[in-house]
Amino acid sequence: MYLELDGQGPRYAQLIRSLKGAILEARLAAGARLPATRALADELGVSRNTVMIAYEQLVAEGFAVSQVGAGTFVTSCARRTTVDFRPSGRTIAAQSRFAARARENWQTNVTRRHIGLRYNLSYGIPLTDSRLAAAWRQAVSRAVVNNSFDYTGARGQRSLREAICDYLALRRGISTRSDNVLVVSGAQQAFDLTARVLLNEDDSVVLEDPGYFGSRQVMQAHGAAIQFVSVDNEGLRCEDLPTDGTKLVCVTPSHQFPSGAVLSLERRLELLQYATKHDAWIVEDDYDGEFRYDSKPLAALRSLDDNDRVIYVGSFSKILFPALRLGYIVVPEALKFDFKAAKWNADLGSPAVEQIALANLMQSPSFDKRLRSAKRTLKARRNALIRGLRRYAGDHVDIVDTPAGMHTVVWLRNCRESDCDNLIALASQRSLGLYAIKPHYAGRPPRPGLLLGYAGLSPADIDDAMRILGECLDAVLPSTN
Amino acid sequence: MYLELDGQGPRYAQLIRSLKGAILEARLAAGARLPATRALADELGVSRNTVMIAYEQLVAEGFAVSQVGAGTFVTSCARRTTVDFRPSGRTIAAQSRFAARARENWQTNVTRRHIGLRYNLSYGIPLTDSRLAAAWRQAVSRAVVNNSFDYTGARGQRSLREAICDYLALRRGISTRSDNVLVVSGAQQAFDLTARVLLNEDDSVVLEDPGYFGSRQVMQAHGAAIQFVSVDNEGLRCEDLPTDGTKLVCVTPSHQFPSGAVLSLERRLELLQYATKHDAWIVEDDYDGEFRYDSKPLAALRSLDDNDRVIYVGSFSKILFPALRLGYIVVPEALKFDFKAAKWNADLGSPAVEQIALANLMQSPSFDKRLRSAKRTLKARRNALIRGLRRYAGDHVDIVDTPAGMHTVVWLRNCRESDCDNLIALASQRSLGLYAIKPHYAGRPPRPGLLLGYAGLSPADIDDAMRILGECLDAVLPSTN
Repeated sequence: MYLELDGQGPRYAQLIRSLKGAILEARLAAGARLPATRALADELGVSRNTVMIAYEQLVAEGFAVSQVGAGTFVTSCARRTTVDFRPSGRTIAAQSRFAARARENWQTNVTRRHIGLRYNLSYGIPLTDSRLAAAWRQAVSRAVVNNSFDYTGARGQRSLREAICDYLALRRGISTRSDNVLVVSGAQQAFDLTARVLLNEDDSVVLEDPGYFGSRQVMQAHGAAIQFVSVDNEGLRCEDLPTDGTKLVCVTPSHQFPSGAVLSLERRLELLQYATKHDAWIVEDDYDGEFRYDSKPLAALRSLDDNDRVIYVGSFSKILFPALRLGYIVVPEALKFDFKAAKWNADLGSPAVEQIALANLMQSPSFDKRLRSAKRTLKARRNALIRGLRRYAGDHVDIVDTPAGMHTVVWLRNCRESDCDNLIALASQRSLGLYAIKPHYAGRPPRPGLLLGYAGLSPADIDDAMRILGECLDAVLPSTN
Repeated sequence: MYLELDGQGPRYAQLIRSLKGAILEARLAAGARLPATRALADELGVSRNTVMIAYEQLVAEGFAVSQVGAGTFVTSCARRTTVDFRPSGRTIAAQSRFAARARENWQTNVTRRHIGLRYNLSYGIPLTDSRLAAAWRQAVSRAVVNNSFDYTGARGQRSLREAICDYLALRRGISTRSDNVLVVSGAQQAFDLTARVLLNEDDSVVLEDPGYFGSRQVMQAHGAAIQFVSVDNEGLRCEDLPTDGTKLVCVTPSHQFPSGAVLSLERRLELLQYATKHDAWIVEDDYDGEFRYDSKPLAALRSLDDNDRVIYVGSFSKILFPALRLGYIVVPEALKFDFKAAKWNADLGSPAVEQIALANLMQSPSFDKRLRSAKRTLKARRNALIRGLRRYAGDHVDIVDTPAGMHTVVWLRNCRESDCDNLIALASQRSLGLYAIKPHYAGRPPRPGLLLGYAGLSPADIDDAMRILGECLDAVLPSTN
């Protein structure tokens, strides 16, 4: 009898799979007697014990019956199912409208193409340091105790929700109660839950153009009818908001992504009034509101929200690190239950150990230290970037200089999209990872530009990177001086 | 001027909120001059510096302008938005059909009502021990390094996906490739992603009755047209499957939840044939397939699946602990991309540190040790339960005795639902937490019964708990002997 062992896992497991295959393919017919254990062991060069274990398991699963003295026999039930359908791995049609829309709008690699290059100016590369790693290791170790092994509840650990309230009151001017804080697995889940709680297919959602591709894609996947409203140097152009039918407006007020504009107070009040008037909701994505270098962070839109229309989304990906996958939502009172239920349905709740560790970390002095040092570090890196741009690329670029965040936008002078593509290609040959602003636009950008993320590089590296950028620009673009 | 400080956070933050409130409510009119810093400091009993910080911030945010020598003045833009809508916290209508269905079907507390009682026979209380805590603490500490701080990618850490492949080949008879493994945040997310990838509203989904309330609620929330098919002692009654239109069948073959039935081989093959014939998909929820006490775990349905119709869902909540919130899906080749995209849209990917720690743990000998000791412990607790039931409650109960899992079902003799309610009430007075089987049925259970979870109690405690149960039964039910 021909039996092949696939080499995965221990011998007895391989033999079990192999025998089942033979039975299911009727190479071992119903009623057939399985070979004597010793004989099969010799044939396959395995121990007799291995064969005996395999036979026992076949019996336990009903593939065979053992008759004392007579041997082990294949049962009659084990016949192969007749196959009248073969899935083709690639060409299957999307099974749901969600899946179809997700395929259609799939675009995730816009910020991570150049991983592995010497200098990667990708947006979203975390700012980490060994002190953070040490503090986090310690916090997690302390959090791992038996009583942190059970489900946490959908809304998240109370201690963390309370720490978040204190943080918001202190740093973002938001006063809320821990009951209105929902712990989520990062900002992306916040957008996803918002879509479920607020939107049916074809409901109208306003997104900033340019804007963040993560929130755009999930709204598209949920089937929202998306209206793009453009952004100028005061942020979202509120006068361009649709005159009716808007269900949700998603904004990044403290540091518009990717343009860097800060939503002015007039616009903030205008937007809140719009939401109230149209019975619409606002998602305030405060993704890097913490990092403001010329003054204290601006107070959040939510802190001006008298009518409870703002769904405030915070993340720890920037102030700690992305792999943590923890964020939170400050939920309007009227939606509190629906968000909790959506979170429960999505995953029952976020991991407990990390929540406990994070709560401890936030209440320890090392958290403030971390924020201050991160701010210092980012400010130094940003200054190195601006200095380097002025020094090496000054006559080719216009810098959008917002003293905030972890990235800067530069516009390229006398440059066509094709030149920009050539620039990026040339730079990557010189091991410099550059990213066009274009993928962040729904329409066309006013002119070619770059999104420069500087969080992951030291000032010295940034200076060197800018030098290379300058040389590449000189090679690709005509000088304007 | 009346200003109230709300006592949240530092003084300057309180003062900023208070002044903004006054400005937005026009108690401080546009153009008005803010009090001199020293005067206000005296009035409020705060340091002058506090007032200066607050004024600076108001200027930075555009609420005020500072004129050198003249003072600080309220700007004209800061007028309160006219309020013509007030959200009422409780009575707002559901904003989406998803939210409406989630409200309608909300039922999460069916297994956790009696937390705090001395003996809580709740299902799903984790089996933890200090050795596991130590091993996990160590694995996590080792995993926390700078290079584990970035996003992991939607499918999850390769090292973990490979460890899962080895585990599946060895213990569940499944041979798959790491490309087909998607790391998710527990089984609940697996059900949710499955709904998104496969289902439009009103698509027909078959669920077991009785069945697991987590998968039922998420399918209901997604708007599936649910067909309940009943379960007997061979598991799902395949002959009762709908004759057409079925898109998805959700089953728990290795240990039906909650009945404990094991899906027979005939039924497994019949179900696979059904899926192939009707072009339907199967979710195999293998929630405790690892814990089988009379033989090796039965091979998974997925291991018999020649036509790639089975979506295999595994969880670490049972073999490790629920708070970990990690599970995985073995995804059919044809759905690989759609599941990855759904996961990305849901949360970008699961946390890296835990994935790395888990991969290391799974590849270490302590993982096998953990599985063996967990199995030994559970077997001992189960035996204590059965012994105790026979000894103290034998003439009141029929025991559904499956040598698997972490819970057992008992049916109550000569008992009405009202008696069962009285039993549970009486038991809780004696600090014994009991749970009826009823909430797990879509229809009516054949007769009153209890779902007894034994993972969290020592054999001695279980014996004592059964003694109390027996006394409560004697008090509530007529003896049948």
